[in-house]
Amino acid sequence: MKTAVCPGSFDPITTGHLDIITRAAGLFDRVIVLISVNAAKKTSFTLEERADLARKAVAHLPNVEVDFFSGLLVDYVEKQSADAIVRGLRAMSDFEYEFQMALANKKLNPRAETVFLSTAAENMYVSSSLVRQIASFGGSISGLVPECIEDAIRTRFAQE
Amino acid sequence: MKTAVCPGSFDPITTGHLDIITRAAGLFDRVIVLISVNAAKKTSFTLEERADLARKAVAHLPNVEVDFFSGLLVDYVEKQSADAIVRGLRAMSDFEYEFQMALANKKLNPRAETVFLSTAAENMYVSSSLVRQIASFGGSISGLVPECIEDAIRTRFAQE
Amino acid sequence: MKTAVCPGSFDPITTGHLDIITRAAGLFDRVIVLISVNAAKKTSFTLEERADLARKAVAHLPNVEVDFFSGLLVDYVEKQSADAIVRGLRAMSDFEYEFQMALANKKLNPRAETVFLSTAAENMYVSSSLVRQIASFGGSISGLVPECIEDAIRTRFAQE
Amino acid sequence: MKTAVCPGSFDPITTGHLDIITRAAGLFDRVIVLISVNAAKKTSFTLEERADLARKAVAHLPNVEVDFFSGLLVDYVEKQSADAIVRGLRAMSDFEYEFQMALANKKLNPRAETVFLSTAAENMYVSSSLVRQIASFGGSISGLVPECIEDAIRTRFAQE
Amino acid sequence: MKTAVCPGSFDPITTGHLDIITRAAGLFDRVIVLISVNAAKKTSFTLEERADLARKAVAHLPNVEVDFFSGLLVDYVEKQSADAIVRGLRAMSDFEYEFQMALANKKLNPRAETVFLSTAAENMYVSSSLVRQIASFGGSISGLVPECIEDAIRTRFAQE
Amino acid sequence: MKTAVCPGSFDPITTGHLDIITRAAGLFDRVIVLISVNAAKKTSFTLEERADLARKAVAHLPNVEVDFFSGLLVDYVEKQSADAIVRGLRAMSDFEYEFQMALANKKLNPRAETVFLSTAAENMYVSSSLVRQIASFGGSISGLVPECIEDAIRTRFAQE
Repeated sequence: MKTAVCPGSFDPITTGHLDIITRAAGLFDRVIVLISVNAAKKTSFTLEERADLARKAVAHLPNVEVDFFSGLLVDYVEKQSADAIVRGLRAMSDFEYEFQMALANKKLNPRAETVFLSTAAENMYVSSSLVRQIASFGGSISGLVPECIEDAIRTRFAQE
Repeated sequence: MKTAVCPGSFDPITTGHLDIITRAAGLFDRVIVLISVNAAKKTSFTLEERADLARKAVAHLPNVEVDFFSGLLVDYVEKQSADAIVRGLRAMSDFEYEFQMALANKKLNPRAETVFLSTAAENMYVSSSLVRQIASFGGSISGLVPECIEDAIRTRFAQE
Repeated sequence: MKTAVCPGSFDPITTGHLDIITRAAGLFDRVIVLISVNAAKKTSFTLEERADLARKAVAHLPNVEVDFFSGLLVDYVEKQSADAIVRGLRAMSDFEYEFQMALANKKLNPRAETVFLSTAAENMYVSSSLVRQIASFGGSISGLVPECIEDAIRTRFAQE
Repeated sequence: MKTAVCPGSFDPITTGHLDIITRAAGLFDRVIVLISVNAAKKTSFTLEERADLARKAVAHLPNVEVDFFSGLLVDYVEKQSADAIVRGLRAMSDFEYEFQMALANKKLNPRAETVFLSTAAENMYVSSSLVRQIASFGGSISGLVPECIEDAIRTRFAQE
Repeated sequence: MKTAVCPGSFDPITTGHLDIITRAAGLFDRVIVLISVNAAKKTSFTLEERADLARKAVAHLPNVEVDFFSGLLVDYVEKQSADAIVRGLRAMSDFEYEFQMALANKKLNPRAETVFLSTAAENMYVSSSLVRQIASFGGSISGLVPECIEDAIRTRFAQE
Repeated sequence: MKTAVCPGSFDPITTGHLDIITRAAGLFDRVIVLISVNAAKKTSFTLEERADLARKAVAHLPNVEVDFFSGLLVDYVEKQSADAIVRGLRAMSDFEYEFQMALANKKLNPRAETVFLSTAAENMYVSSSLVRQIASFGGSISGLVPECIEDAIRTRFAQE
């Protein structure tokens, strides 16, 4: 049985994330959506909110679960005996950073193999920060986030 | 059971190729090293030579086999009911071309999922064309190709 | 009245080209699709065939015409008193080459302003060479070229 | 009549910005230099100062005006019935970000066509942040900002 | 006699930095490791700590010294009558930023020639921020920083 | 005494090449412009013509000489006891290829240190192929090649 970890901030989870997770779920037996806990980074959604939104978004995928972790990614990979870290690439600048992190993670733990999937063309411009920016100005986020969590995100930004 | 295809010219197979194939063999149940037959492209090694060298290089990997195919990659993927195309990325320009091919292949056959692995740092500069260039001037190709095929390649270029 | 020139090989014209031309036709009063005549470059379609396919593809755009030219692009721009060269960008490597050509053209003729449009996400992987590659193996080019010229391209490759 | 919008922080306007605006003024009938109001981003110059400097810099261009806006760029484009968003590209990393924003803006409003101009070679390294950095250390900003606002910027940083 | 300056934050000095400095010491008669003082940027190590670590790391290189400076790099270069600024490149995004800084520095002072060295493949993923991130979670930084300062860095993060 | 080698096809030498050579001559005691002999590559100018043009272009630089070599660059570097290979970078795609060659050369001979200089902004678009293309259509190559060889190049293409 092969296990893959999809790490990220998921602040909030987007259509682009879900596309990568869905395809990972087709390639691996078990997929863990891992929400990273980074005390230094200010997020729009709390850890609990991000986990809730992610859980709703992947509810229809039986071999996908949601977890969170504070610390080095490779330690989590080790603990779970995971076989791969899955990352979606949208653009070259993504690639460069991801490439360096993949090398660094392999150095820290040779088991930590990173697998890249290229984002679907129609999701190339989708990012959590774009979703937050549009939502904060009351623009339409339809198609940018999974349909089942659109209302939750809209409501959240309307409160600000 | 998950099957992955590693397509390429393998003219000849390098240490970089073998690194990607070995890692793919750890992630998938069955890996096919697929030598592409491109009548228009002039190669240094014949199809048979390339297949021979590749077979020697992967002989120690029980779940890896070598095949060749002329035609569209997606048709081969379909025929083998493969789950993924595996590609190694060495650099950004690789990435850009690979990204476009991944989108094109997915358009031709939605089943054709492409998975990218990043080449190990020490293999970043290794390519078949570098091997051919160095070997043709009688330089040392040690470390650039699998040890078991070094002699075969050296001999082949010495004959020219 | 502002005139723009869209230069290229158009071997053959693709959905990506047509998208750029259509958008240019919305920004400029007159758009010239300029097929470059490069004696050194071997093309799959003759100059006449490329012009025919392009004319069919833009027939519905009243302010677009098709022309061809051998020589320096800036000389054509000067002759037509054109205001801009329009180029579509699909990827970074496109950008880099285009950037250098734009600087070179501006040096040769300060009037020769280059305007870049970014290809629609869904056309990002479409290129003439991909179309030729798929068509030559009998794969489906539907969606990759304007519908009205699909048959002409298919027939052309079936004859080979 | 075609209208183009040149959005940015303009903190402060540079020779590079002015080059792009001047060329846009040659391609479009009306050009709006749009200073974005982003409450979250700390700027060196206030909104009023940035607008003043920009107005002085474009005073000689009869079809250029300066405005500011808080909200989504596409909403401003809609309100003004603008035909294009004009962006200058200095480098690849610019391109990648701009490419994603162009796709995002087109998704939010299909009218919002983005047009890219490549920065003149001699302005490739000019940016507002470079100007601020040099000015804050009392270095020479000559050639980096329009001549008519050099004194104003120097005075502003001397007060700190 | 040729003098080169290696500027940076060195927060802390890494194996990658040391590799570049060592190679610069082989190309130039005198090399100055210049720690930049940037009041606005929050660092993990104080200026004194960073200088101490750098001095320990280069103690075995007789023609290398450590200095610090607040202000424009070109002014320091002028003051020292240095012949070159040496920068290590790890990746493309490095390159783009460095390219713009090199052009800017040359504009500010035509004497300020920038020389780029490419980071050794095995150091490609090493950066000060990676070192800080790993050390702060108690991970192993062995091989990422010069051996003689490993303990000092570990101790420093254990105190937090 | 430090020796640097500037390798290339120089088909023909351009203003961009001369800029890099001139700057290398300021950093190193002895600079060798090395014209590579590549039997497989068809050039517009013969080896002798390329050497002649290069010699004329560097005649005013006392510490620069012109040589040619067939074989692996690292072997030439070894034979000359050179300290550095100097390469000019115009763009990112240059950088990527150069980066891989620098790593490959260092692997073949650890002595072979590669030093990169960034092309002056105004030469960013200048390349031998652009010069050939413009000259073949009778366009002006003024400013693209050293003044002292303009006539020789013009005459050469007029004969075709």
